[in-house]
Amino acid sequence: MKICIVGLGVVGGSYAMALTEAGYEDVFAIDKDKNTLDIAEEKKIIKKGYRNAEEIVAECDLIIMSIYPDSIVNFLKENNGNFKSGAIITDATGVKGVIVSKVEEVLREDIQFVFGHPMAGREKKGINYANSKVFTGANYIITPTARTSESAIKVVEDIAFQIGFKRVTKVTPEEHDELISFTSQLPHIIAVALINSDNEKYDTGRFIGDSYRELTRISNINGELWTELFLNNKGNLLKRIEEFENQIDIIKENLISENTDNLLEIFKKSSQRRENLE
Amino acid sequence: MKICIVGLGVVGGSYAMALTEAGYEDVFAIDKDKNTLDIAEEKKIIKKGYRNAEEIVAECDLIIMSIYPDSIVNFLKENNGNFKSGAIITDATGVKGVIVSKVEEVLREDIQFVFGHPMAGREKKGINYANSKVFTGANYIITPTARTSESAIKVVEDIAFQIGFKRVTKVTPEEHDELISFTSQLPHIIAVALINSDNEKYDTGRFIGDSYRELTRISNINGELWTELFLNNKGNLLKRIEEFENQIDIIKENLISENTDNLLEIFKKSSQRRENLE
Repeated sequence: MKICIVGLGVVGGSYAMALTEAGYEDVFAIDKDKNTLDIAEEKKIIKKGYRNAEEIVAECDLIIMSIYPDSIVNFLKENNGNFKSGAIITDATGVKGVIVSKVEEVLREDIQFVFGHPMAGREKKGINYANSKVFTGANYIITPTARTSESAIKVVEDIAFQIGFKRVTKVTPEEHDELISFTSQLPHIIAVALINSDNEKYDTGRFIGDSYRELTRISNINGELWTELFLNNKGNLLKRIEEFENQIDIIKENLISENTDNLLEIFKKSSQRRENLE
Repeated sequence: MKICIVGLGVVGGSYAMALTEAGYEDVFAIDKDKNTLDIAEEKKIIKKGYRNAEEIVAECDLIIMSIYPDSIVNFLKENNGNFKSGAIITDATGVKGVIVSKVEEVLREDIQFVFGHPMAGREKKGINYANSKVFTGANYIITPTARTSESAIKVVEDIAFQIGFKRVTKVTPEEHDELISFTSQLPHIIAVALINSDNEKYDTGRFIGDSYRELTRISNINGELWTELFLNNKGNLLKRIEEFENQIDIIKENLISENTDNLLEIFKKSSQRRENLE
């Protein structure tokens, strides 16, 4: 199977690495940055890199798009005439609702697009931070539509397991976006707000433990990408922010009134939920 | 040097383990739970355990109190007649303001109390989760008062470095509590509010990545301990919660108005702060 990865950033690069390690020998990549392709070739995580999609796209059985959501539709339009008949395309995009209809509007009838979301990544950008191990034990989400064939889903699902994912779950694109606004987008908003609320009166780094480190790791954020993701899922996200703020307010009120019983109940609930999470 | 640890929970147990590994041969422990002491003796992380403080306290040069803040003063009162003259006592408590004056009020004149805060711990309770490695590379805070001698501080500081801490920083008890409300207490409130804001419509565990895992790890919280810590630092904590909520609101408003420039600026600020954190 010839596989082509479009966009060799930290996620695309990790895909290349994981697929090569899983035994795939024909892993190619398209990226606009020559240096990135050179690095990937040197590391032998791709067979060959291309800056011009036309040179490789027609040969590929599977195309993994690891580019910004707004770029996916453009790539499809530009390459619609080039895809191999029967090819399967998948993506790694963190929002689905807005892209699904746009993609299916332009997609050629003999091509399958399986919308996928690997729940793994790194806060850093670029091929140099790529690491095949990020997928190990992680969750993978597929959002089939009426147009997605079972066989195409199977191909993408099998590869997910081969490169280390632990669970593959199928939900609708709408459910995905609702879920992800909570499990992924809200944590990023929180991390950013936490570190930005530092009044910087002290040298904070001298007074932190693992909890602060963990809660702020993702405050080092790819702003361009996440702004797109947030704005493309604005309704869900705003609702989730408000639900979170409600919980903060409940704790705040019980601190003010020093209602120990309520506080203990709140902490018991959070502890039980965390124990049962996975 | 004879060292006695009061309270062999996850932090006290980690101290015992780290001190033993660092070469201290006379490490003793006081705990009300016989089973805990048996485990520690079997693991050879203490020389001997005692349920009755009187049996050992008089021999100890250094006493490390790893019990709840409200219990420290009681322990001092009960054992005030027993301490060895010249002994040094230290603690591992997460709030200082409220205990410092109470401790110094009852403390015998020939005893030194060096208030310490290891910025390391685990969300789990009990000796079975003790791990000497939690201190490796961590921050340690000492809050000297007018009554604390330089030589006693030096003893506690040296031991901190010996068991793996990377940095020891001295601030006043008031500064400590102000700092800690932000770097430690606020993250715990956030983690609890995050997981409790889950509407549980879906099987959340299938749709999470490392960011959600990290942001909720400490939502599994020792409620009794943290309720004490929060209420003993209520003023600082409430202020920090409000500053955090302000930052959340700023992001929310910019999402509503789709002000991309502002959002990018916010994410740039958070990224730079995280890069510069340590």
